Amino acid sequence: MYVVCEEQLYFLFFEFSMTKFITENFLLQTDAAIRLYHDYAKSMPIIDYHCHLSPQDVAADRRFENLTRIWLSGDHYKWRALRAAGVDEHFITGQAADWEKFEKWAETTPKTLRNPLYHWTHLELKRPFGIADRLLCSDTANSIWEEANAKLQQPEFSARGIMRQMNVRLVCTTDDPADSLEYHRKIATDKSFDIKVLPTFRPDKAIPTVTGNLNTYNEYLDKLGEVSGVSIRTLDDLLTALKKRHDFFHENGCRLSDHGFGTFDYWFHDRKAAQCFQYLRNNKCDTVNGTIRYHQAKQLVHIQSLILRHIAQMDAERGWTMQLHIGAIRNNNSRLFRQLGADAGFDSIYDGHFAAGLARFFDHLDSEEKLPKTIVYNLNPAANEMLASMIGNFQDGKTPGKMQFGSGWWFLDQKDGMEKQLNTLSNFGLLSQFVGMLTDSRSFLSYTRHEYFRRILCNLLGQEIHDGLLPNDFDLIGKMVQDICYNNAQNYFGFTTVHTNF
Amino acid sequence: MYVVCEEQLYFLFFEFSMTKFITENFLLQTDAAIRLYHDYAKSMPIIDYHCHLSPQDVAADRRFENLTRIWLSGDHYKWRALRAAGVDEHFITGQAADWEKFEKWAETTPKTLRNPLYHWTHLELKRPFGIADRLLCSDTANSIWEEANAKLQQPEFSARGIMRQMNVRLVCTTDDPADSLEYHRKIATDKSFDIKVLPTFRPDKAIPTVTGNLNTYNEYLDKLGEVSGVSIRTLDDLLTALKKRHDFFHENGCRLSDHGFGTFDYWFHDRKAAQCFQYLRNNKCDTVNGTIRYHQAKQLVHIQSLILRHIAQMDAERGWTMQLHIGAIRNNNSRLFRQLGADAGFDSIYDGHFAAGLARFFDHLDSEEKLPKTIVYNLNPAANEMLASMIGNFQDGKTPGKMQFGSGWWFLDQKDGMEKQLNTLSNFGLLSQFVGMLTDSRSFLSYTRHEYFRRILCNLLGQEIHDGLLPNDFDLIGKMVQDICYNNAQNYFGFTTVHTNF
Amino acid sequence: MYVVCEEQLYFLFFEFSMTKFITENFLLQTDAAIRLYHDYAKSMPIIDYHCHLSPQDVAADRRFENLTRIWLSGDHYKWRALRAAGVDEHFITGQAADWEKFEKWAETTPKTLRNPLYHWTHLELKRPFGIADRLLCSDTANSIWEEANAKLQQPEFSARGIMRQMNVRLVCTTDDPADSLEYHRKIATDKSFDIKVLPTFRPDKAIPTVTGNLNTYNEYLDKLGEVSGVSIRTLDDLLTALKKRHDFFHENGCRLSDHGFGTFDYWFHDRKAAQCFQYLRNNKCDTVNGTIRYHQAKQLVHIQSLILRHIAQMDAERGWTMQLHIGAIRNNNSRLFRQLGADAGFDSIYDGHFAAGLARFFDHLDSEEKLPKTIVYNLNPAANEMLASMIGNFQDGKTPGKMQFGSGWWFLDQKDGMEKQLNTLSNFGLLSQFVGMLTDSRSFLSYTRHEYFRRILCNLLGQEIHDGLLPNDFDLIGKMVQDICYNNAQNYFGFTTVHTNF
Repeated sequence: MYVVCEEQLYFLFFEFSMTKFITENFLLQTDAAIRLYHDYAKSMPIIDYHCHLSPQDVAADRRFENLTRIWLSGDHYKWRALRAAGVDEHFITGQAADWEKFEKWAETTPKTLRNPLYHWTHLELKRPFGIADRLLCSDTANSIWEEANAKLQQPEFSARGIMRQMNVRLVCTTDDPADSLEYHRKIATDKSFDIKVLPTFRPDKAIPTVTGNLNTYNEYLDKLGEVSGVSIRTLDDLLTALKKRHDFFHENGCRLSDHGFGTFDYWFHDRKAAQCFQYLRNNKCDTVNGTIRYHQAKQLVHIQSLILRHIAQMDAERGWTMQLHIGAIRNNNSRLFRQLGADAGFDSIYDGHFAAGLARFFDHLDSEEKLPKTIVYNLNPAANEMLASMIGNFQDGKTPGKMQFGSGWWFLDQKDGMEKQLNTLSNFGLLSQFVGMLTDSRSFLSYTRHEYFRRILCNLLGQEIHDGLLPNDFDLIGKMVQDICYNNAQNYFGFTTVHTNF
Repeated sequence: MYVVCEEQLYFLFFEFSMTKFITENFLLQTDAAIRLYHDYAKSMPIIDYHCHLSPQDVAADRRFENLTRIWLSGDHYKWRALRAAGVDEHFITGQAADWEKFEKWAETTPKTLRNPLYHWTHLELKRPFGIADRLLCSDTANSIWEEANAKLQQPEFSARGIMRQMNVRLVCTTDDPADSLEYHRKIATDKSFDIKVLPTFRPDKAIPTVTGNLNTYNEYLDKLGEVSGVSIRTLDDLLTALKKRHDFFHENGCRLSDHGFGTFDYWFHDRKAAQCFQYLRNNKCDTVNGTIRYHQAKQLVHIQSLILRHIAQMDAERGWTMQLHIGAIRNNNSRLFRQLGADAGFDSIYDGHFAAGLARFFDHLDSEEKLPKTIVYNLNPAANEMLASMIGNFQDGKTPGKMQFGSGWWFLDQKDGMEKQLNTLSNFGLLSQFVGMLTDSRSFLSYTRHEYFRRILCNLLGQEIHDGLLPNDFDLIGKMVQDICYNNAQNYFGFTTVHTNF
Repeated sequence: MYVVCEEQLYFLFFEFSMTKFITENFLLQTDAAIRLYHDYAKSMPIIDYHCHLSPQDVAADRRFENLTRIWLSGDHYKWRALRAAGVDEHFITGQAADWEKFEKWAETTPKTLRNPLYHWTHLELKRPFGIADRLLCSDTANSIWEEANAKLQQPEFSARGIMRQMNVRLVCTTDDPADSLEYHRKIATDKSFDIKVLPTFRPDKAIPTVTGNLNTYNEYLDKLGEVSGVSIRTLDDLLTALKKRHDFFHENGCRLSDHGFGTFDYWFHDRKAAQCFQYLRNNKCDTVNGTIRYHQAKQLVHIQSLILRHIAQMDAERGWTMQLHIGAIRNNNSRLFRQLGADAGFDSIYDGHFAAGLARFFDHLDSEEKLPKTIVYNLNPAANEMLASMIGNFQDGKTPGKMQFGSGWWFLDQKDGMEKQLNTLSNFGLLSQFVGMLTDSRSFLSYTRHEYFRRILCNLLGQEIHDGLLPNDFDLIGKMVQDICYNNAQNYFGFTTVHTNF
């Protein structure tokens, strides 16, 4: 029931055009949403339980020379937009000066209207930089460059300074099992910094893949063997080495493992796995430029299945949470992969089936009562409903929200993707048990993603209160908001070191 | 064009907070929607053409001791929510007392906010129990338990009493071909009860599946042979037996068959089918714990194809409607399947492809002019558009709405899923020809699902009238609403016994 | 924040019921949307860069006898609706009189409520016929028939007259490489007609498919060889012939190629391709009724891959745009296919995977720097996100918007499908670079599809301005609207002959 009332309308539009773009009530379309966000969500601290920050930068409390260094370097979302707008690689990953790169981004920003980059860009300029009176474009590029760079010289804008400003309590980085964790240890013993920076155990390199390079794999095994003090000759040796590193990570506060897949398959055939591993380890595979030929590569699923099962069991035994990231097809542009390497903006969504494989994997673990707490992140929204219903088969009645449908990931980490994840989770499971948002980011400027998520969450719930689809009970819904923003994550992961005096 | 007007807004919110949660206009967001629901939809009777009610309970006019027995026993939707909330199996399917089980459900209900269970729960408390002044939670558990249990002692709350209260005209249960239909016959001859309870022919057990047990299958064939008076030695024998039962069901008022699939495939190779059946029947298959090994199991599709084709032909000859339920992956948790059996909350959505197989099946039948009226229910919303467009290829210009895209099924039987089905059907076919909602339920308390559906339908249509996307013609749209709620089903299925004096 | 205000509401509803169905502000739900449409979108001319119009009809400036001839003949969307409503084929594609056919369509129209046909029908009656005071139904059939037929006798309603009325600047038809382009040439040299009618190079018949007929294929090769003056004995010969026709089409203004696929696969194995082609060309394949048997048909992908790659390279060298239409499963109803042939309403959405194949195809071309500008149209909305993210891997930083996610196609060419395409493109790429809408139509009455698209586009953007999700900057957003409606297409395709004095 909407009413047009001309006078009020002009007044409203006039008022609107005077206000800034990202207002206090950005994304909040009802009074109920406004109340939920400002009274319940806004002040909750942040547990960023999955990101790709450099622990070295935190340990060194890095200062960034300018906006390009902290904002554009390494941000392959922006790189993709620049390429789509017709900007030459010289100004993206090439040798152009920092200011030139920034200028190109400023020119491109208005072309990203309706892309999440447009929101993220202005959210990040507002917080922490406090720049909310201008939209980024060619005309404003210079003034924003100057103002932000000046801020970056202040101590509040160092790596740690930004984390403090953004009310972060704990972050989990993403680390290779062979990593020494020296920076995590350094941070942990630094009394002057009380935000926890914990490692995550991500053994992707220990699992051979269809598109991987055999030499690279064997070199990695050598390195892992060295670090763990295990001479890796058999698959059992590899498992022993991984177990040692799992122990070591646990001692250093790690409570999550993480694993990435194009699609997901699982078969239980340990003899084939061991045999296939022997071929790899002894370099007896048939390869083309280092890549295992397809007919043999199909056997790799057995190795993957066995290693994953063992790591899952370690996770279960230690009370860790296993994260599965499913659905990325990577390095699709081989010309630019050769030039720029991985994670440069040439990855996208894959469309494989994985219901049956995932069911077999979970069922195998569950039948041995070794299924850990699990978060599955899904990159193809066409699989949302399948996945959200699948994990419900393995809720065990012991750990509330044991099986989690992870927050909107990568390309889906935007309003539409987040809403779909929240709606699907709501329809197929219990939203109230959700452990909430993470940045998944390489940048210290991404913490407003939590704000973005919280506004979207409050907007969905507020709209439903407004529409009578949820009861008009702010104690009830407000508590759910706070649980999803912070409390559930704190309770679920079992970090020993989180501040609980909130 | 929305207007914020502070004074009016506070008034509205104040008023809102005084009202109950499930109001008269629940789910109806526009005046047009309100008018469509109250003037056209609300009073239409119910034809529940697909459910899993126990005909024995209707025949005996069962009384339920308490709310747990009528509401929680057998409801695997609630079981899944309880497990996800961390409730022990003891309080779900275990030995806990009825009150204890109810108490756990009351505690869990607020955790289901945004899950359809939250709406269903309160809709069902409102109708038929008349409890609409309290939200179910720990605090209200006792008073609701007492009030509802008292009601259950009244004759209006027996199995038949509830059906009468809910304005039900006809239900179709789901029955095995070997069933004696004794309870259906008893109900049919009971002059004191004029709601029709008809059987549906569901021969799933007669079709061997990849995950099924060979011994169980052969025992079933023995039983079916006995009931039908046919010694089943060959696939032809099985078809003969099924035909006899099809006849018998027809005599007892049955007008639908029903068939369930994980995904759907179809091949026409009768010799292979007969041969493969012979292996099964003579127990010559290679099995593991009774399950046929995968390499042989792939041949089962030929048996399935042949049996289905023959049943479809029987359906076509008799003017029945064939129902296909596609997309469930079942019994994923083998530990709890061994403990609790099937239909205990461990099923979910499958992600297989089935466009080509379904096209071949329909085309084969159509080319012989033996394609019956067909309803396809789809569990994976990612396949909605494919399916809704596929059935359009086989509309024959003879029976209006011959090929139906079935209502939101199982996990999709909620606001989002129903809206998707209604929107997809509208975009790819003719909503006006839709045969509407069914409960698919095992419970006598599920009839408010029809109310839920009708409110959602009226809300969609009302919103579009409001927005000028549909003409503001209530005679036209109101008639469509009534057709979808009742008239289309009455015309489509050809039940000989439906009251037509509505 | 909505406000109910009873008095105003009744006034609004009263006013509403007095207005016509398709009003000036049809589909425009906010003031911002209204402003964007009327001030920016409405008056932009049309570049219809993909359609199936008959160039012969344009050359002859065809007059249509009546509404059935111009509106119902050849429109398989309407045919499907008629069949679903239970109308006999006699009145659809059969021998019924034109008036009888129209009468059936008039009866059926109210049954299409919520189907896009209901909107399209009334949009097309409004423009160009000016009939906006009646809804089409049995009661109005006669008056609309008379009024429209009278208009069709006027010169403004000839093929060219309608194109002029609708502000069309350029259309691209869809043409076989063997086509003589005589009508295009005739139109090009006709000084009295300044709308450009250019051909598109669509070599589907030159690529053998799994379901195709081998004799038909070889006959086509004979014909193509003759037209191009190349005796086609080998695959190289075929490429030579296609190159000659590509040259010829280029001389005649063609700047696009077009290719249709059920699903998409790509392998690089030129020797197998040549070998397999030799079997086909020498009629040595194992066939059933002319169709190649499945085990051999699997090899056809190699021929398809090779031919496509070569055409893509030709496109790249000449600055053409390659169009890929992916996801239709065709001629599913073989009984009616035999009776009515192709394109008669028996096609639907396919559900195959194609991420990996498409990635390999693009990557192969890109690695040789021979990837042309490309538009991919997708028929299965479940693949939208995969596709929109995939093309981002191949944006090259040279041509702005080089890789395009095409507008809602076929079954998806409606409000929901267009909104999904626009939203997905926005989330995964740059909406600002989008080349916009096309009719894909066989009818001269389809140009209101551009109006439909523009209203939907303006509505989406206007809603987001209203909600504060986009900045309230009409210069910025209005320019984006005009770019998508016209300017982007003009800049992207490089037609040499488009009027630029707009």
